[in-house]
Amino acid sequence: MRPAGRARGLPAAAYTSDRVFAFERDRFWRGGWTCLGRADRLAEPGDQAGLDVAGAGVLVVRDAAGRLRTFRNTCRHRGHELVARDCVVRRPTVWCAYHAWVYRLDGTLRNAPRYDPPPDADLDLLPVRSAQWRGWLFADLSGDAPPLPDVVGDLDSVLAPYRPEELRVVASRSYDVAANWKLVVENYLECYHCPSTHPQLSRVQRTEGGESFTPTDGWLGGHLDLRNSANAMSLDGTGPGWTFPRLDEDAARQVRYHLLPPDLFVTATPDHLVTHRLVPVATDRTRVECEWLLPAELVAAGTDPGYAVDFWHTTNRQDWAACESVQRGISGGGYRPGPLAPHEDLLHTFLVRVATAYRTGGPLSPARPTVEPAP
Amino acid sequence: MRPAGRARGLPAAAYTSDRVFAFERDRFWRGGWTCLGRADRLAEPGDQAGLDVAGAGVLVVRDAAGRLRTFRNTCRHRGHELVARDCVVRRPTVWCAYHAWVYRLDGTLRNAPRYDPPPDADLDLLPVRSAQWRGWLFADLSGDAPPLPDVVGDLDSVLAPYRPEELRVVASRSYDVAANWKLVVENYLECYHCPSTHPQLSRVQRTEGGESFTPTDGWLGGHLDLRNSANAMSLDGTGPGWTFPRLDEDAARQVRYHLLPPDLFVTATPDHLVTHRLVPVATDRTRVECEWLLPAELVAAGTDPGYAVDFWHTTNRQDWAACESVQRGISGGGYRPGPLAPHEDLLHTFLVRVATAYRTGGPLSPARPTVEPAP
Amino acid sequence: MRPAGRARGLPAAAYTSDRVFAFERDRFWRGGWTCLGRADRLAEPGDQAGLDVAGAGVLVVRDAAGRLRTFRNTCRHRGHELVARDCVVRRPTVWCAYHAWVYRLDGTLRNAPRYDPPPDADLDLLPVRSAQWRGWLFADLSGDAPPLPDVVGDLDSVLAPYRPEELRVVASRSYDVAANWKLVVENYLECYHCPSTHPQLSRVQRTEGGESFTPTDGWLGGHLDLRNSANAMSLDGTGPGWTFPRLDEDAARQVRYHLLPPDLFVTATPDHLVTHRLVPVATDRTRVECEWLLPAELVAAGTDPGYAVDFWHTTNRQDWAACESVQRGISGGGYRPGPLAPHEDLLHTFLVRVATAYRTGGPLSPARPTVEPAP
Repeated sequence: MRPAGRARGLPAAAYTSDRVFAFERDRFWRGGWTCLGRADRLAEPGDQAGLDVAGAGVLVVRDAAGRLRTFRNTCRHRGHELVARDCVVRRPTVWCAYHAWVYRLDGTLRNAPRYDPPPDADLDLLPVRSAQWRGWLFADLSGDAPPLPDVVGDLDSVLAPYRPEELRVVASRSYDVAANWKLVVENYLECYHCPSTHPQLSRVQRTEGGESFTPTDGWLGGHLDLRNSANAMSLDGTGPGWTFPRLDEDAARQVRYHLLPPDLFVTATPDHLVTHRLVPVATDRTRVECEWLLPAELVAAGTDPGYAVDFWHTTNRQDWAACESVQRGISGGGYRPGPLAPHEDLLHTFLVRVATAYRTGGPLSPARPTVEPAP
Repeated sequence: MRPAGRARGLPAAAYTSDRVFAFERDRFWRGGWTCLGRADRLAEPGDQAGLDVAGAGVLVVRDAAGRLRTFRNTCRHRGHELVARDCVVRRPTVWCAYHAWVYRLDGTLRNAPRYDPPPDADLDLLPVRSAQWRGWLFADLSGDAPPLPDVVGDLDSVLAPYRPEELRVVASRSYDVAANWKLVVENYLECYHCPSTHPQLSRVQRTEGGESFTPTDGWLGGHLDLRNSANAMSLDGTGPGWTFPRLDEDAARQVRYHLLPPDLFVTATPDHLVTHRLVPVATDRTRVECEWLLPAELVAAGTDPGYAVDFWHTTNRQDWAACESVQRGISGGGYRPGPLAPHEDLLHTFLVRVATAYRTGGPLSPARPTVEPAP
Repeated sequence: MRPAGRARGLPAAAYTSDRVFAFERDRFWRGGWTCLGRADRLAEPGDQAGLDVAGAGVLVVRDAAGRLRTFRNTCRHRGHELVARDCVVRRPTVWCAYHAWVYRLDGTLRNAPRYDPPPDADLDLLPVRSAQWRGWLFADLSGDAPPLPDVVGDLDSVLAPYRPEELRVVASRSYDVAANWKLVVENYLECYHCPSTHPQLSRVQRTEGGESFTPTDGWLGGHLDLRNSANAMSLDGTGPGWTFPRLDEDAARQVRYHLLPPDLFVTATPDHLVTHRLVPVATDRTRVECEWLLPAELVAAGTDPGYAVDFWHTTNRQDWAACESVQRGISGGGYRPGPLAPHEDLLHTFLVRVATAYRTGGPLSPARPTVEPAP
């Protein structure tokens, strides 16, 4: 689906209207699967985290059997948060700090103090549908999205050689970006901007000549080669001298970019992964949570992850500056959607999917479409 | 009116909708009596203060006869404030700093410079209805609320033994709370949260076993006993070794909580009062003005009010943290109003009154209802 | 058009409503001529500036022939700004930092990298109508305002003796004012407030006894005499001992105030000019760009402009404090538009023009009205 100079971007209102933003928040984020980060952030039974899905609080609990459970992060009594947002605690029960209501780790109400008789209504925590995939935890606030494996589709086999489920988070960083979340996605989906925006990246990675993947499902992605002079995505091109052992010859010299809409970017390099998770805050504001993931072997060998952290932190800031400038440039009435370049085919695919979801009321991550039988 | 586990809280929109907030601001605050603080803040003739009633400016002036007068804090010429908000000045006239229009302390226009002939329209300051009660000044921006004594009702005799009109403000503190004003009120109306939220308070005061008052009028309240081990509401339970002399035996060992809706909390302890005055700023933001009041005898004796200031400042911050967590918890779509506990009967009375005012267009502080004659 | 105490100000909503503000932004600022500042800020071919017209980005470029050109500050590809807002750069082409699209200084697209064939659509920069007048650059985003000379009208001959086109900017300062832009204009149009608001100014300039100009066109203005004891608008009344040589005897002792609606104030004194340019940000927020202009002779002689800078910076801050107090005073429901004073005739003319533009859909700077032939 090469746009060939004829396809054009979305109109300005898609990036500046509060009503469009509210629609997207309700349909794209709260209406389907969104990523809550790494599951191993909750390591032990009793670990509990307060997380944020597009402004809605979600409580994640590792129960006594070691299974992760997710609930609305809201006490059934008066609505107090059960764990403060962005915090992790370890406790044998879920405990509301306001009136000391106590829930078991499976979400059932254990005690409401000073009730006699106890309240007879169902006051267990409201469950939130969740699922895990290769180390990441996902939630579906709507409860009726297709099963997560159908949405992930063959991205699973594409990422399998990196064994993401065995990686360790060695660094993380949160960014506030003054731009609409779609501009951050669009920026991720093309490397046409790399030569002008990313001089450091362009020294170690080719910026053209790659290919887009042809997913069977809702994800998008493509890959580009490391330059011959470079061995890793780092400021000087040197890395840990190690490569994921299951990669084929191509992948061992490629940087592979994968978007699982609406919110997870997985960038796979020969020796590490870096992920970006988007949290939409307002039509012109997005929080981006970036994590660096290294294989356990390298962590055990004492590899300093600074080579990857410095590189992507440099690249991140260049990207956010570009996105923020576009946000300003398309505000104020002077923007006409321009033609997409041949190297923006993935971006085009994404925009077509957004436009379709505007029409259908979508979510943005459709599962594999049912194949229509031939008549 | 024990809720008995069946009554439930208000829906989330009551705490998150801008439209509900605008309604409440216009009907509850600007539509009836609100408290402007202590009258003796303006001690001498010519003293003038610029105050704020839910975003509307009010000018308070002590006139030559020593009487307090209240006006819109807006010059009749072009609208400049007459005294800057939150400031007190002493001047023989009311003087607009913009074009030097001068008003007498009774609000009549004395001079509009460079008019010849003088403007013939009525350009006296726009009066605001006001009244005092036991040292507090109240304003009614609507002008047609029932008389203040009818709204205060028997709260007057309930507080009489503390002689509030003779107390001195020994400390004050302003808090910005990121929560809807009703959450701050609800938090004040129950001590069900005390054991978990207020460990210091719970060491010196019992948190159950008290009674609610049965007011004849618009106020609400209840009382709880000091613990046997404590003599005062302080971090270590010791106080000034003095008790209001007119208290009966019960009151001399009780902490009494009184709400005069929508905005004044009067907490009476055996040796001091503390008050909270709410100023609604936005649907999710409330300013709280806290004042500590001590009897003149203790002030004259050089009593350090720190024992009460430290105690309530600690308690205040715990309360605001809880209110702010509830505000977050009920935002984002995952909140279902829960059942109120038996110890939340006052809160229930308040919510019924709010819901009634939503329906009738209220104000929130009804005067004593006319008794229907028997048929 | 002396208001004589009967004419009144605009209702509060004109200064507090978001809808009124959006109307004014679209009709008054983006619907006609607005000032972009001094043209000589871009001195050499290749100089480029990113400017702001009421939130819309404008790119100004001095082309190879030395002519100023203006465009939307938005790349035709994806909308990135071409020059960052409030920045000036010098480059042989217009270059988008995002994807390296290149435009010639005349706005035509020179290169879109990696297109083969090149895009066949018209992708030249979107031109913005502009014009210069006596050293100032103006833009008309609507493209259909009357010619700038018709809007400027006889302000041109009024200012001619000061030869503004030959002056040098010797200082500039940006202010954020928490008031509606019209309050800033109204404050400029009367010196009735000077005795009370500006003690320093009132020591060197008379505050009454002047005259309003009777323009044939869209501008407004008036003049007031220097006091006999003063030689310049400075804190101590002393100046550089020099006077614009072409001024007549009256002008040589006058301070002359000129408003070219909606956004340019030109204050002409016997030895320097000071200008204010308004940028509306929100209904209660205005950015004011102040510039001090001295004749080349004084600059060449090494005159320290501090005498004028200190004086107007003092005066500016007094004005903004007054405007901000009015903004607060007219918010909250207690404001009734008051009678305008005899010395507020210019302000009255301005308000009548605003009210007329509300009715007709504006813009605010009408050209000379066509004279109706006698029947």
